[in-house]
Amino acid sequence: MPAPPSVPYVRVVPLGGCGEIGRNMTVVETNDDMIVVDCGLMFPDEEMYGVDVVINDFSYLRQRADRLRALLVTHGHEDHIGGIPYFVKEFSHVPVVGTALTLALIKAKSREHKLGEVDFRTVVPGEHAVFGSIDAEFIHVNHSVAGACALALRTPVGTIFHTGDFKFDQTPIDGRPADFSRIARVGEEGVLCMLSDSTNAERAGHTLSERVVGEAFSAIFARARGRIIVASFASNVPRIQQVIDQTERFGRKIAFLGRSLQNVVHFASELGNLRLPPDLAMKLEQLEELPPEQIVVMTTGSQGEPMSGLARMSVRDHQRLRIVAGDTVVVSATPIPGNEKSVYRTINNLCKLGAIVVHGTDGRSHVSGHASQEELLLMLNLVRPEFFVPVHGEYRMLNAHGKLAVRTGVDAENVFIAEDGDVLEFTHEYGDKVGKTYGGNVLVDGSGIGDVGEAVLRDRRALAGDGIVMVVVAIDAEEARVTAGPDVIARGVFYLPEADGVLDELRTALRAMLESMSVESMRDVSTVKEHLRDTLAKAIYTRTKRRPVVIPVVMEV
Amino acid sequence: MPAPPSVPYVRVVPLGGCGEIGRNMTVVETNDDMIVVDCGLMFPDEEMYGVDVVINDFSYLRQRADRLRALLVTHGHEDHIGGIPYFVKEFSHVPVVGTALTLALIKAKSREHKLGEVDFRTVVPGEHAVFGSIDAEFIHVNHSVAGACALALRTPVGTIFHTGDFKFDQTPIDGRPADFSRIARVGEEGVLCMLSDSTNAERAGHTLSERVVGEAFSAIFARARGRIIVASFASNVPRIQQVIDQTERFGRKIAFLGRSLQNVVHFASELGNLRLPPDLAMKLEQLEELPPEQIVVMTTGSQGEPMSGLARMSVRDHQRLRIVAGDTVVVSATPIPGNEKSVYRTINNLCKLGAIVVHGTDGRSHVSGHASQEELLLMLNLVRPEFFVPVHGEYRMLNAHGKLAVRTGVDAENVFIAEDGDVLEFTHEYGDKVGKTYGGNVLVDGSGIGDVGEAVLRDRRALAGDGIVMVVVAIDAEEARVTAGPDVIARGVFYLPEADGVLDELRTALRAMLESMSVESMRDVSTVKEHLRDTLAKAIYTRTKRRPVVIPVVMEV
Repeated sequence: MPAPPSVPYVRVVPLGGCGEIGRNMTVVETNDDMIVVDCGLMFPDEEMYGVDVVINDFSYLRQRADRLRALLVTHGHEDHIGGIPYFVKEFSHVPVVGTALTLALIKAKSREHKLGEVDFRTVVPGEHAVFGSIDAEFIHVNHSVAGACALALRTPVGTIFHTGDFKFDQTPIDGRPADFSRIARVGEEGVLCMLSDSTNAERAGHTLSERVVGEAFSAIFARARGRIIVASFASNVPRIQQVIDQTERFGRKIAFLGRSLQNVVHFASELGNLRLPPDLAMKLEQLEELPPEQIVVMTTGSQGEPMSGLARMSVRDHQRLRIVAGDTVVVSATPIPGNEKSVYRTINNLCKLGAIVVHGTDGRSHVSGHASQEELLLMLNLVRPEFFVPVHGEYRMLNAHGKLAVRTGVDAENVFIAEDGDVLEFTHEYGDKVGKTYGGNVLVDGSGIGDVGEAVLRDRRALAGDGIVMVVVAIDAEEARVTAGPDVIARGVFYLPEADGVLDELRTALRAMLESMSVESMRDVSTVKEHLRDTLAKAIYTRTKRRPVVIPVVMEV
Repeated sequence: MPAPPSVPYVRVVPLGGCGEIGRNMTVVETNDDMIVVDCGLMFPDEEMYGVDVVINDFSYLRQRADRLRALLVTHGHEDHIGGIPYFVKEFSHVPVVGTALTLALIKAKSREHKLGEVDFRTVVPGEHAVFGSIDAEFIHVNHSVAGACALALRTPVGTIFHTGDFKFDQTPIDGRPADFSRIARVGEEGVLCMLSDSTNAERAGHTLSERVVGEAFSAIFARARGRIIVASFASNVPRIQQVIDQTERFGRKIAFLGRSLQNVVHFASELGNLRLPPDLAMKLEQLEELPPEQIVVMTTGSQGEPMSGLARMSVRDHQRLRIVAGDTVVVSATPIPGNEKSVYRTINNLCKLGAIVVHGTDGRSHVSGHASQEELLLMLNLVRPEFFVPVHGEYRMLNAHGKLAVRTGVDAENVFIAEDGDVLEFTHEYGDKVGKTYGGNVLVDGSGIGDVGEAVLRDRRALAGDGIVMVVVAIDAEEARVTAGPDVIARGVFYLPEADGVLDELRTALRAMLESMSVESMRDVSTVKEHLRDTLAKAIYTRTKRRPVVIPVVMEV
């Protein structure tokens, strides 16, 4: 039971990210004010045929739009910002708050969506932003993008601490470890509830420092006799910095391919998140005039995305860069689950073209941006929360993270393994799950948001499995006789050379069936349809053991 | 250019397994005789909508059926035996040769396919089987199934050595390391060409011994307070042995769930490949009368296959076993690329039910059955082949394996990174690629073998992406006027609540278009179709930004 309005409370509602990797979004709400932390997207899984992206359901926000004060963004990754264009279309009055680089990444994204004016507010890590009864402090943490922050949200009932995505890198590239002292101070003041990144909660030990990648790059650069091509995520500013550093050190020049990467390099340099020495970066056309051993090219496509720079290079479909024997290609990422096949397809194709391909974490050309168990334990010990909600992970990860919390002294009863949509409420007296709101997927397909439901996906699955067959007949309703057809049309069922023969057979079978029908049955369109469907489905199954979608159409003329 | 018939030759033709993991099959052919090594299947990738399994093209065998003497099978895994039911349907006179357990696994499979008599011939490792000019020696190796063999194929031109799938396990569960002395002797005699398993050619070091899994199991069994459920591949006899051993050691009893697993336990015990103490195995019904701490259940589903025992348990859909809090579930396998999502879905669901889940190689509850680089190098040094063909892998693995061979002294020019269908020829004078035969996929869908072509898959992809819309009109050809329709039927495009409204709008647009057409255009069916298609496609795209398959049907009455 939710608290009555007279009792001061703070509610925490994860709308996404609890039970899946992606579409992270959390609501924090007091009696008078509500803020949202992050608004991400998720990429559709293989069962969601034709779906472009998956976002969160905004119903809970809609119902409380009058007290929605701000969207706070922890960092600029798709799974934390990808839903913002949909959010600001609906809540255009709500300020979007984050560090400069985070906002730059959101703006780049918004341009594609042709949004109107958005009330962006820049914060510097260490600053507070106050929204009614909620005081939000942004605290610097390390992650695989610059400008990442944890949030200390002080409310009348107590402090909610949200780690965002983080790792503790003791030797980060930008020289700025996470702000341990501020985190510790928040912990000392007392934290009511902590929400923390669970991505690597099943992984023992400590995530390696980003600096390790630099050492790996250094060895790769020392060995390479030809061009070096590095693929990574466009937003991974620390990784870009490392490629730049090695380029400079080994006397090479660099070109950045692709608009998203060029954008990030541009913003991040301007904002001081990236140190790009003058004259090091060139356009690809200029770069190509240099000998191969002076060339570095950075590109996207580390997930094997079919339209990305790297995937196109791998099949000689890239307009401007042609892979040749002697090129070294570094895939500086690990495949996100579900992308393995496309990543390895790209790597195989690059090998076939004669490139030397370095990939995976084996060569240490990639490290994770998320904290492993030892760092998660350290965060728990610094913050010492009364309640704990693991977020950002599949159930198995949240579960593992919950167990870690108990090990640091959090009461097992105060650990909530939440599902999307769970309404957690904290007062001066208790902390409990008091309700459930809709926390499911909203599928975006073309311009339709949320209009692709289970029925449509079920149809697409059926169509994908065995194709579709239609039979069309025109019937003179008065005389109860066939005036045209039956015509049979199939897509995705029969192989062409023999399709004509099969279709003829099916037509013959249908014609025979129609001729055998009584005048009364012929007058009833639904009976004719049923007969057509049955006859056709059986004839196809007998011949092929396939069960396509069968659609009978009867035209009464 | 192939050699003339007067010159003694041996040809090696990989029909599958070179460029992919799966559908392994290699032809070895002299002037007079031909044998086939293995005949596997591959599971369809996510783009092969509706396809059940993928097998190899038998055209090369068909053209030379008169000299096809035998199918030699190295071991009983699906990717080496799965195509055999299709093979024996076509080449029923050809003997199928392998060790007892391998043949038992094939027979279990054949029963599902209702085959007639097959000429099975059992060999014991160490034995020779002679087929005309080809003398095949079966040599014991270690792998994640018992009864695995390498093959030394002695021909008039020289010896072809095929490793099959292997690892060098110095402390195997059955106490029998690979037959080093025979392999070394074959090497000393001189090997013309070696074909070797490349699965782990990118992995440094040595694959861990199967015994390591036993140690992990021992720790898991010691910790478990409730029931223990272990999921693995049904054919992994060494793994089954380890579960049996720990069951006995910790005073528990075991039940095997699922027909395939029960079959394997039955064969393997009878054939002496598995040591199952009397009274240790029970039926599940009996087992359930014991206290939880005495219960072990072994099942399939380590790949998250939706119909498998483990997947059903994870969603409480298993008729006979209900997961409860306190159960320990061991997923003793790693996900095959492409299966990650289903494996983790199963693990998440098991965690939600309160099970303690041990998975992945982290806990050492699984080790690979394939040789890593140090073992591959050892094999190369034992066999010292003149020519080398890495097989059983994606291109990147074959490529890495080829480089290992060069490091052991094989001439780089004598390493063939072959593609499926490459015809490699060896005479006393040379070894070279002399031709190319069809080595592509044959897709099996329902009862159709090879009749699902690119066109059908393209159609299914289009249908899966955005669904299908049909418009049907009946036209009086003489009067050039519409007598019924237009009717619009859609599947997988519009969400139901609003579908009716959309379909009405589309019908109205189509009616208006038809009314605006001239009498001449109306007389031409193909013009009417084009107009219908254009109008419909545009109206749908404007409204939804989707591009379904659009099919116009015009009935002339």
